[in-house]
Amino acid sequence: MIQKWTLNPNRFFDPDPEIRKIAAELYNDIKGLPIISPHGHCDPKWFAENQPFPDPTVLILIPDHYIFRMLYSQSINLESLGIPTRDGMSIETDHRKIWQIFGEQYYLFAGTPTGCWSTHELIEVFDIKEKLNGESAGRIYDQISEKLSSPEFLPRSLFDRFDIEVLTTTDGAEDTLEHHEKIKSSGWKGRIVPCFRPDAVVNLTSRGWKDHIHKLSGVSGIDIIDYFRFIQALENRRAFFKKMGAVSTDQGVESPYAHELSPAEADSLFQRALKGRATQQDADRFTAHMLMEMARMSVEDGLVMQIHPGSFRNHNQFIFERFGPDKGCDIPVRTEFTRNLHELLNKYGNDTRLTCIVFTLDESTYSRELAPLAGHYPALKLGPPWWFHDSIEGMTRFRESVTETAGIYNTVGFNDDTRSFPSIPARHDLSRRIDSNWLARMVARHIIDMEDALRMSHALAYDLAKKGYKL
Amino acid sequence: MIQKWTLNPNRFFDPDPEIRKIAAELYNDIKGLPIISPHGHCDPKWFAENQPFPDPTVLILIPDHYIFRMLYSQSINLESLGIPTRDGMSIETDHRKIWQIFGEQYYLFAGTPTGCWSTHELIEVFDIKEKLNGESAGRIYDQISEKLSSPEFLPRSLFDRFDIEVLTTTDGAEDTLEHHEKIKSSGWKGRIVPCFRPDAVVNLTSRGWKDHIHKLSGVSGIDIIDYFRFIQALENRRAFFKKMGAVSTDQGVESPYAHELSPAEADSLFQRALKGRATQQDADRFTAHMLMEMARMSVEDGLVMQIHPGSFRNHNQFIFERFGPDKGCDIPVRTEFTRNLHELLNKYGNDTRLTCIVFTLDESTYSRELAPLAGHYPALKLGPPWWFHDSIEGMTRFRESVTETAGIYNTVGFNDDTRSFPSIPARHDLSRRIDSNWLARMVARHIIDMEDALRMSHALAYDLAKKGYKL
Amino acid sequence: MIQKWTLNPNRFFDPDPEIRKIAAELYNDIKGLPIISPHGHCDPKWFAENQPFPDPTVLILIPDHYIFRMLYSQSINLESLGIPTRDGMSIETDHRKIWQIFGEQYYLFAGTPTGCWSTHELIEVFDIKEKLNGESAGRIYDQISEKLSSPEFLPRSLFDRFDIEVLTTTDGAEDTLEHHEKIKSSGWKGRIVPCFRPDAVVNLTSRGWKDHIHKLSGVSGIDIIDYFRFIQALENRRAFFKKMGAVSTDQGVESPYAHELSPAEADSLFQRALKGRATQQDADRFTAHMLMEMARMSVEDGLVMQIHPGSFRNHNQFIFERFGPDKGCDIPVRTEFTRNLHELLNKYGNDTRLTCIVFTLDESTYSRELAPLAGHYPALKLGPPWWFHDSIEGMTRFRESVTETAGIYNTVGFNDDTRSFPSIPARHDLSRRIDSNWLARMVARHIIDMEDALRMSHALAYDLAKKGYKL
Repeated sequence: MIQKWTLNPNRFFDPDPEIRKIAAELYNDIKGLPIISPHGHCDPKWFAENQPFPDPTVLILIPDHYIFRMLYSQSINLESLGIPTRDGMSIETDHRKIWQIFGEQYYLFAGTPTGCWSTHELIEVFDIKEKLNGESAGRIYDQISEKLSSPEFLPRSLFDRFDIEVLTTTDGAEDTLEHHEKIKSSGWKGRIVPCFRPDAVVNLTSRGWKDHIHKLSGVSGIDIIDYFRFIQALENRRAFFKKMGAVSTDQGVESPYAHELSPAEADSLFQRALKGRATQQDADRFTAHMLMEMARMSVEDGLVMQIHPGSFRNHNQFIFERFGPDKGCDIPVRTEFTRNLHELLNKYGNDTRLTCIVFTLDESTYSRELAPLAGHYPALKLGPPWWFHDSIEGMTRFRESVTETAGIYNTVGFNDDTRSFPSIPARHDLSRRIDSNWLARMVARHIIDMEDALRMSHALAYDLAKKGYKL
Repeated sequence: MIQKWTLNPNRFFDPDPEIRKIAAELYNDIKGLPIISPHGHCDPKWFAENQPFPDPTVLILIPDHYIFRMLYSQSINLESLGIPTRDGMSIETDHRKIWQIFGEQYYLFAGTPTGCWSTHELIEVFDIKEKLNGESAGRIYDQISEKLSSPEFLPRSLFDRFDIEVLTTTDGAEDTLEHHEKIKSSGWKGRIVPCFRPDAVVNLTSRGWKDHIHKLSGVSGIDIIDYFRFIQALENRRAFFKKMGAVSTDQGVESPYAHELSPAEADSLFQRALKGRATQQDADRFTAHMLMEMARMSVEDGLVMQIHPGSFRNHNQFIFERFGPDKGCDIPVRTEFTRNLHELLNKYGNDTRLTCIVFTLDESTYSRELAPLAGHYPALKLGPPWWFHDSIEGMTRFRESVTETAGIYNTVGFNDDTRSFPSIPARHDLSRRIDSNWLARMVARHIIDMEDALRMSHALAYDLAKKGYKL
Repeated sequence: MIQKWTLNPNRFFDPDPEIRKIAAELYNDIKGLPIISPHGHCDPKWFAENQPFPDPTVLILIPDHYIFRMLYSQSINLESLGIPTRDGMSIETDHRKIWQIFGEQYYLFAGTPTGCWSTHELIEVFDIKEKLNGESAGRIYDQISEKLSSPEFLPRSLFDRFDIEVLTTTDGAEDTLEHHEKIKSSGWKGRIVPCFRPDAVVNLTSRGWKDHIHKLSGVSGIDIIDYFRFIQALENRRAFFKKMGAVSTDQGVESPYAHELSPAEADSLFQRALKGRATQQDADRFTAHMLMEMARMSVEDGLVMQIHPGSFRNHNQFIFERFGPDKGCDIPVRTEFTRNLHELLNKYGNDTRLTCIVFTLDESTYSRELAPLAGHYPALKLGPPWWFHDSIEGMTRFRESVTETAGIYNTVGFNDDTRSFPSIPARHDLSRRIDSNWLARMVARHIIDMEDALRMSHALAYDLAKKGYKL
């Protein structure tokens, strides 16, 4: 007899009967709330074109570096997983065969959030009834494939079914937002808004910087021949993004060091970059300055500012050269906030026009730096546990480390931050369950009462994201 | 029907019936022990003058930066909370109105130690029977106000009622200890002892350093014209503090780096400071030297040495300029002990005449540096979780991270460290409950037996503080 | 009535009935598996000579710095504990008296892994039936002494009784492995293999470096007059170790910084050292280079490479001068992996011929650096929680911090890493119980199912160590 693959209704709750009962009560109260997804990496083209997703491997595995980095760590090369190379050469094209590998290796994900999300997704979104493994992989591939060809599985249908109130994409400064435009003019009511992320034009030494500047000149109609026009172009694009529904910006930086330069010095760094002679130190100084500038612009135009620091991007040069960025080889580094944000917070941290949401990959900063900063500066809020820490234990550690100093009202709810569209309900469900369980543990220990817990639960699942991102 | 506001007798214990039963047994065994408060910031003047506390806002909110920093983080300015400005201008003086804000915002503290302490304090100390919120705030203000005017709520009455065996204040090197003197000569038996904290005269670049040196000259009768007389004056004051009952000293330093200078170099730094020309680097070197000197003096006079490192003081310059220090904007920084304390521990760490108690705001150092150091050097003991970490989860993390390497007998029990006198019983009660629960978890898992647990429980609640501070 | 000292069959499992039931089921499934001990510090001489251990103090206390450092931290000097001094002078020789101190102070170990292991060892290995304390110490000493003189307690008998499938020792590059040779030729079937640890010849400024180089010349038959012959000699010894059964190498470094030098530069540093003029910076650069060289050699000869970084050795100079190394005064320092291992992983991390196992004493690196690195690079695996973290809470934190990013299949099971031979069964038993409990917590929360848990449990207790170390 084969056991049916199911999701336990009490999953992720502590087994203690008292905690479990309270957690279930809190969860049941908020599980039906619409999804606010204020930060993520879905492709707006999916919703603009609304074409069927081609097959399970393209939908689930290939865009998701959480999945294929784990397979790679076990010596399965990326070519055999169909990950496109830069030169477009020699990769596996039999997607059913790739899915077979995924099935055989699915046991690797036991105890990981990717395992939890994928299981939820297969069972809930695709109605799969047998556990994924090497034996079942082919059948499951066929079942999903069949579903993907039906109208109920078109991107917009799934968006509606997932009950997403708003979905934010992440877009370069030079992006034309044509897909967002097409969605808007299509008459479909799904709210998909861009987020302004100018990393490619801010980081003076990143690959292709001049091309990006060139494109930015094109879309802004401002000939970027110096720092001053660069700033004008950014302000121009922020206004355009805002008109297109954007409520936020984002910056990915290795260090969150913020420091204002004189306009003359900023321009001299910029000129050096235009001549292709910027050093890494130039780039670091310019990035530090641009954090100050982005804060200034946010004070002026009201866009919520996000900072995602502390990732050493493309650590594996071999993989980067062959496959490009976002291939599972970005590795966190130690991050410092107290000194690095000192200048920014002194200039703008008391200004209630600013909302600056900070993320971290360095959990040691939760209780040491971030909670004390967010528990004091009105402009500073903490983003949810990010990337590697967006997990059952990771979220629990975040709540336990941050709340006692900053409370929950200096945080901004949940971000799914995903490239994997069909995993969105699974991610929000997991987050809601973990927050419910964490609150239940406090109720059961009489740290808070149910009145507090119900208010906090609603805030964590919905209100804080909406308010924090001005949605 | 309004639910009565109560404290659950099993609060803060795990709901698991086995753990809860053992925790309650351990707690009941030690809950009646007198309070040893070996480090804190109560004002000795309260007990010297024994005048009624004027109103709830003055007693509870205004001295407590734990409370008003949280309100400030939610965009409530400090003026509206009655926090005195440096220039004495334009702040809210209607204390009932301020209390109303506190009531309306009390939900922010759900899940924080401040919430737990305040609730305990309102219910137990002031017999409040309805939950604090915007609706009840006015009534509660009136009830507390009425109580404060009765003899039972005079400072000395509360001290006796709280069953405080000894309360340590924190006092500058140049302090005359007149209030301590007055308490001693009053005939009242409350034991309130000073602690020698010379930060203001040690830190060469702190605001008003020369004024403090001038005062120190005055009270010591030693004209501090050079480093040697500075040391003499400190030794003189330590002797005076000791005569007045002091058992300990304290130093607040950004980094715990300790390094002995030659007397000539120490004097040259000191001379530069006297001329108003000390640099930050000078100050850092002098502080490092003074850690060595304070250790030497402790070896000689037997005063227990405390070090509180790792706080970036007055991070928010706007708040500091307008309101002064201790306004909730001191933010922790990463702290290093293994290398920084190397010289001090090599010179004095094997000397059993020294007790050096180290605190940290950087929890990553618990298991990595502090527990291994305290689990080896006879002179080194670990202070309890400090400031932001003096909380349910924070204390639990401390015990779980430190004990397996250092045991409990290289720690020194609990410090309430508070400026908020009426919160003292709440803080000790919470600490005793958390330690009981932590021990109960170990008993329930058969890591220790009840004989061990009872001994450890008594040690944590009473013996270790008494022994560690030579009280 | 005296209570019998016993080991509870459910020890270290959560008291929650659901978790406890699952944990017991998982544990019972793997508790009988043979012990793989792939890294440790037992003396091969014990098994080569197979002579009776002289007395309880020599067997249990004197070799174990986990025990005597705790006693030292409570002001019991090492002389009184019989720890041999460098000059062989004036130490306590009455081992029964030393054991008495241990008994009196045994309460210090409550809540520590040393306490758990010792209790297990006394009850299970030596059949002691009363709790160790000052009153019982003498009787227990006599009971153990009597046992030690019987054939059942000879080293090889205990090895067989402990069901050790393989035991790895740690041996210097210049070691002749005579004891391993003698074991091999004795006909006894116990598998005891060496591990190649060349620290003494790699670290240019370590005490006695030239003597070690001289010995290495002797045993390799290569006159080490330059860097090139040094490398030859190492390769020669690795081949010899491999012939003697070795499957792994090890390096202890303060920082895991890896950086390849030109052969000319490497030789110039080596020459400076031969002349006794190497600086600390020279030594650091040479160590960084040797990490690259050891990785290269491992790619070539297939020996598994281990790195144990982050310990500030011999922090207490007084103890080091008087008693030598490994006396409980090695203290961890903050450790960085993402940048430090960048060059090594870029050169060898994608090479599936290499297995590089990294350990850490800095728990903040678990989720921040090590899990992301191991969850990507095929050549990198994570060693189990090391030294101070080889404990109930430490192991739990490791699993909870690492697994969500790296899974369990990028880790290598358990290492006992001990100098205390009779504690081996206790250490493996504790590890198996903690992993069972951690898995049970996930099953009870429906994060994994029993099929996953049983596979993972077997992997953690046996398969991963065997596979990871190519045993």
